[in-house]
This record gives sequence, structure tokens and C-alpha cells, in this order.
Amino acid sequence: EKKRKGWRCLHYVAQVIQVADYKRLVHAMKFGLALVLVSLLYMLEAVHDKLGDNAMWAVMTVVVVFEYTAGATVTKGLNRLVGTILGGGLGSLVAIIAQEIGGVGKAVIIGISIFIFGAAATYLRTIANIKKKYDYGVLIFILTLSLVSISGVRVDEIIQVASARLSSICMGFGICALVSLFIFPVWAGDELHSSLASKFNSIAHSIEDCMNSKKMMGEARKPSNCLSVLSSKSMDESLANFAKWEPWHGRFGFYYPWNKYLQIAGHLRELAACITSAEGQLKAKQEISINPLLLSIKEQCEATSLLLVNTMTQLRDCIIYMKQFPRQELVLEELQARRVQLSSHIQVSSLALTINQSAGSENGMKGSGVRIVIQVFLLVEILDKVELLVKEVKELGISAGFVNQTLDDKC
Amino acid sequence: EKKRKGWRCLHYVAQVIQVADYKRLVHAMKFGLALVLVSLLYMLEAVHDKLGDNAMWAVMTVVVVFEYTAGATVTKGLNRLVGTILGGGLGSLVAIIAQEIGGVGKAVIIGISIFIFGAAATYLRTIANIKKKYDYGVLIFILTLSLVSISGVRVDEIIQVASARLSSICMGFGICALVSLFIFPVWAGDELHSSLASKFNSIAHSIEDCMNSKKMMGEARKPSNCLSVLSSKSMDESLANFAKWEPWHGRFGFYYPWNKYLQIAGHLRELAACITSAEGQLKAKQEISINPLLLSIKEQCEATSLLLVNTMTQLRDCIIYMKQFPRQELVLEELQARRVQLSSHIQVSSLALTINQSAGSENGMKGSGVRIVIQVFLLVEILDKVELLVKEVKELGISAGFVNQTLDDKC
Repeated sequence: EKKRKGWRCLHYVAQVIQVADYKRLVHAMKFGLALVLVSLLYMLEAVHDKLGDNAMWAVMTVVVVFEYTAGATVTKGLNRLVGTILGGGLGSLVAIIAQEIGGVGKAVIIGISIFIFGAAATYLRTIANIKKKYDYGVLIFILTLSLVSISGVRVDEIIQVASARLSSICMGFGICALVSLFIFPVWAGDELHSSLASKFNSIAHSIEDCMNSKKMMGEARKPSNCLSVLSSKSMDESLANFAKWEPWHGRFGFYYPWNKYLQIAGHLRELAACITSAEGQLKAKQEISINPLLLSIKEQCEATSLLLVNTMTQLRDCIIYMKQFPRQELVLEELQARRVQLSSHIQVSSLALTINQSAGSENGMKGSGVRIVIQVFLLVEILDKVELLVKEVKELGISAGFVNQTLDDKC
Repeated sequence: EKKRKGWRCLHYVAQVIQVADYKRLVHAMKFGLALVLVSLLYMLEAVHDKLGDNAMWAVMTVVVVFEYTAGATVTKGLNRLVGTILGGGLGSLVAIIAQEIGGVGKAVIIGISIFIFGAAATYLRTIANIKKKYDYGVLIFILTLSLVSISGVRVDEIIQVASARLSSICMGFGICALVSLFIFPVWAGDELHSSLASKFNSIAHSIEDCMNSKKMMGEARKPSNCLSVLSSKSMDESLANFAKWEPWHGRFGFYYPWNKYLQIAGHLRELAACITSAEGQLKAKQEISINPLLLSIKEQCEATSLLLVNTMTQLRDCIIYMKQFPRQELVLEELQARRVQLSSHIQVSSLALTINQSAGSENGMKGSGVRIVIQVFLLVEILDKVELLVKEVKELGISAGFVNQTLDDKC
């Protein structure tokens, strides 16, 4: 029963990997489709008669706004729309005032206002919070503002030009939104969800690798899984930002607690940092110990790391299948018991004794004893963090309305 | 003498912080200036007669291409130029072929080629290496290709339109390059250089905080400096990418070893991960020990961490002032001696004894003993990494031609 369960998970992960490339192909096709649609629109006589060359802006909008996930496309499109409206409005105002004045004053007024608004908006773009969410909108604001106001030098019907451009941009955005929301949509929320699950997975593998010395000696290890977890912060943040703009889909409703995902990912990064340093310690050569006391401690360590791997795998499954953590209290108790056992007075003393013995008796044993001490202490720290994660995933389950399957045995 | 040295460094760091905001203001002003220059150009009759409304592309180029550092502006501008040339060329070809065919075939040919090229280029954009360096160029390629080829439906002189747009873009890029290279230039190389130095600084501070238990108990600590080091990877990589495109400036010539900077930053991130986990261990409550043996080990630990902080500070100064590490062999020997001492047989046994004693005698002492064991082992690991860093900085000094000041005592 359990094995079949494990296979299903493995299968799921394999699917995710295979699907990645297929998804990229589909994305490319979708982009091509949106581009062709907007081009056909441009080529229609009816559209050209109304908008003229301004229809070009629809094409530009599609090229620039279409992104991999639906949320990113919507966010960028809204940024572009709001930026265009504000910039176009202000630009028209500047152009009208400049035309009222006329003569050389026209160029002066336009130059000064472009300088002031451009510099102010650029300063805004350097502020971290605005850069994170509205960078593109501010860019488009500056662009539209300057284009509309300098058009005022020659074109008389500025308002008309501005509104033609705005409606072209709306057309372009409409096509992007349709294609990305309705044709094989890729949701930023789904991506964030599966990236969180895969983080649990890679940390579970790292703990396995790290504590299982035989494996480490036997096969050439691939570069640490933890490093990718460590550097995932900005990616996660932008995905969460996009996910908030996505409509209800699958089991992700509005007001889904994406921030909780970021919190859990933060804890996972801390855990990854801890495991990375443990790996550094254990990459050194490993002696095989024959001291019975050492062996017994080693066995305990291995049992603990097995428990940790199991817990992480269960947490991963909870997130993949969006269900509550089953028998949570039991697991928490088990984790706490392990921690108490490892860090207990007796344990420390016996460790100390072991080191003494091994250091005193044989030289080759020394390193082994030392390494086990480190293992124990790092394990205690990892236990702490995993305990916290269990609690966090429980909170996530409550606020995101995960299914409660404790009565069912299909966990 | 040493104190004055320390003050000078602190002053340098304070300056860097103060300067950051001032730099952002200057950047905003520079952007405003470039925008006004290009707008004036657009308003000139001579330019408008020649380029018509295509002159608008110069404005667009300035808004989109102007970036904070000179290297980023140049990279983005070159991407835009190459993308425009390739996309414009291919687009003109498509438009000419479509015009040859005429009739309904025209729209079909244009639609199919836009779909194929658009999808192919979008697939390219999802490949990590291309995304990192040429994302913007490929985007512009798609944009120009589709705009030029759909213009072919109506405009007859496509080549003329394409060349007018290309020369507008060149004008815009020229203004951007002039302003960002000659008016208070901000170099990506300088930014990378000072970010490396500040990484050494924050790690030195973290080691200080981490090992100095009194400080930890006394004052409320600000969030760990190490976390910012951990998440700096993508920022460093893009800065190095830009720095390669910057002309000779200050003491950074062509072929300056920027990749070595990335290597050192990578080692610093590993060190930061190690220190983060040490901080986790030591954040727990600290008992003050009165056991003489424990105290002596603690003193050794403190001496070691002082040595580490000093080494990191010296390395930082080497990088700030671009000089060779003075008395490198001596420092390496000292570090190795410390490591041997800490990890030596005697040390381990005495530690074990200590733990035994303290665990046996008093309950309060237990935690203290355990924590010191961890401190010692983490210190050994940190020593390893700092040793590596000393060697790496030496290599950097050789390949980057740092000044050799060993004879001079102004280190």
C-alpha cells in the first residue's frame, strides 16, 4: 500500500519534469497565435480605417505583455493600461497647455514638463517596493507621457491620437488575456504550489544523502538540491505577486493564502542553509566505525533522519494533494521525543565518553566520533525546524481549506 | 595607527550608504536629460522632415534602454540594435515576398511567417542561457519582425520605413550611451566591486555577533547580515554580465577578471550559509559558565573568531583598495595552526571531558558545554572556508593586477 503510494508520488514528480518542456512549447505556440490574431486585426480594413497607424500599438502590446503565466500577463497588461491612461492624460494636458502658449514657449514647456515628470517617475522606479510591483507601469507612464506631449508639437487632435492608442492597447491586451486565460492556461499559482512541493522533495533528498554515508561514498553525487532552494526567494515572490491577480481556478479561490506559501518557503530556505552546512561537514572522508557505542548512536541518527525524510515526504504530499496532515499530533510527539532523546543529558555524556574512548584507543576512530557529534547537533537543529514546518503546514491547511482525510486511510 | 585605519574603512562604508540615495537622484536627473534631448531632436524640423513619425522610435528607445548602470544601458542598447536589424531584415523579406504574391495570399504568408518566427523566438526566450543575456534582443526581434512585415500590407516602401526606424533607434541609443557614459557615469563594475567588499564586511560583522555572546545578550540584534549575502546571486551575475560591456574606467581595464568576482561571491555565500546555521544554534539562551576548562576553550574560540574577523576585514580592505594581501603566508599559517589546534586530538578529548564534568556536576552547565562543542566545530568549518577565500583573493589580486604593497606599511 505504502509503496504504491510512493510510486504515485514519484510518477507525479516525473510528470512535472517532463511536462516542463512540453509547457514551453505550448507557451511558444500560444504566443504565436496571439501575435497572428493581432496581426490579422491590424490587416482588417475596418480597424485600420478607424485607428490608422496607431493599430501598431496593439501589436506592440501583445509582444511586450504576453508572459509565461496568466497572472504575469494580467499584471503586466493592467500595469500597461493604467500607465497609458495616466501618462496619456497628463501628456494631453501638457500638449494642450503648450499649444495655448504657442511659439518657442511650446518647446520650452514641453521640454521642462518632460524633464520633471520623467525624472520624478524614474526616481520612483528606484524605490524597491514600487520596482517590485509597478516598474512596468511607471515605464509605460513615462513613455506615453513623452510621446503624447511631443506629438502635441505637430498633431492638432492630441486627444484623438491618445484615445486611438489607448483603444489599440486595449485590443492587444484583450487578445493576450483571452489567449493566456482560456487556451491551456499556465497559472502562476500552480507554479508556486508545485515549486513549494518540490522544495520539500529536494530537502528530503538532501537529508537522505547527507545522513546516509554509504550512499555518499558509493555514487558520485549530483550538486546539492538545497542550493536551488536557497536562491528561490525572488522567483517565489514574483510568482505570489502574479498569483494574486489570477481568477478562481482549480482549487485556488480568491483570497487564497499565497503569503503563507512565502512564509513556508522562507522556513524551507533556512532549513536548506542548515543542511548545506551539514553537507560541508560530511563531505570529508568517512571512516567506517566498528565501535559498538558509536554504532548504536549512528543507528539512532539514521532512524532520526529516516523520520525526518518521512515527515518531509508526508508534508510534500499534503501540499501536492491539498489535504490536511494526517495524525499530526502523533508525528509532532515523535519529533519531540527524538529531539529530547538526542539532546538529553545521557546522550551527551555517552557521546563524550565515546569520543574519549575512540580518541584514546585508536587514531582512525577519532574523526568518526567527531563527525557523529556534529551529526547529532545538526540533527537536533533540523528537527526543530521540521517541527516548525509541520505547524506551518497545518496552519496553511486550515486557512487554505485543505481536505481533511484523517478518517480515510488514503493518505 | 590601526585605529585610524579602521575609521577610514568605516568612513568609506558610511559614504557608500549615503551616496546610494544621491546616486539615485542623479540617475533620475540623467534620465530626464536624455529624454529632453531626444524630445528636442524629435521637435527639430530637419529631423522630422527626414524621419517623419518614425522619429518616435528614438523616444521609445531612450525610455526603454536607459538603465541605472552604464554597462546595462550599453548591453540593452546593443541587444535592441541587433534585434532590430535582424527582425527588420527578415520582416522586410517577408513583406516583399508577400507583396510579390499579392491578393489573399499576402495575408496568409504574413500570418504564417509571423506565427513560425514568433513561436520559435519565444521558445528561445525560455532557454535559461539566452534569457539571461539576450532576452531583450529576442523580444525586439519579434516586435520589429511583426511590425515591419504587417506594414508590408499597406506601405510600399518597406525598406525605407525599416531604415528610418533603425536610424531613429540609433539616434536614441546614441543619446543614451552619451549620457550614461559621460555624465556622472555609474559603472556596473564599480557596483560589483563594492558589493563584494560589503559582503566581506557583513560576514565579518556576523562572525563578530555570532561568537561574541555578551553582545548577543546585551543589545537587540538587527536581522542577520548574512541573509542579504545569501540572496545576492542573480544580482551579482547580471552586474558581471554588464561589467563586461563597459569600457576601460578607473582601475578596471578590458578583460578584467569579473568571473573571479563571481567565484569569490559564491564562496562567500557558502560561508554565509554556514554562519546562518551557527547563528541558529547560538540564538538559544546563553548560560555564563564558570568552569575553568570551559572558560579556557571559550577564550580560544574567541581568539579564533577575532582572527577570523581580522582576516575578513583585511580581505575587504584588499578589495576596496585593490592591493595584494599583505603577509599572506603568515595569515594562512596562523589560520592553519588555529584549525589544527581546535580540531586536534587533545582538544576533542578535553572537550569531551568538559562535557562529562559539566553534565555530571551541574545541570545548568550542560547546555553551555554542548554549545561550545558546536562552536568549535563550526569554527573549524569557517576556518576552512576563510582559508580558501584568502587563496582566492590572492589569485584575484594576481589576475587583476592589484598593487603589491607588502613593503609599504600602509596596509
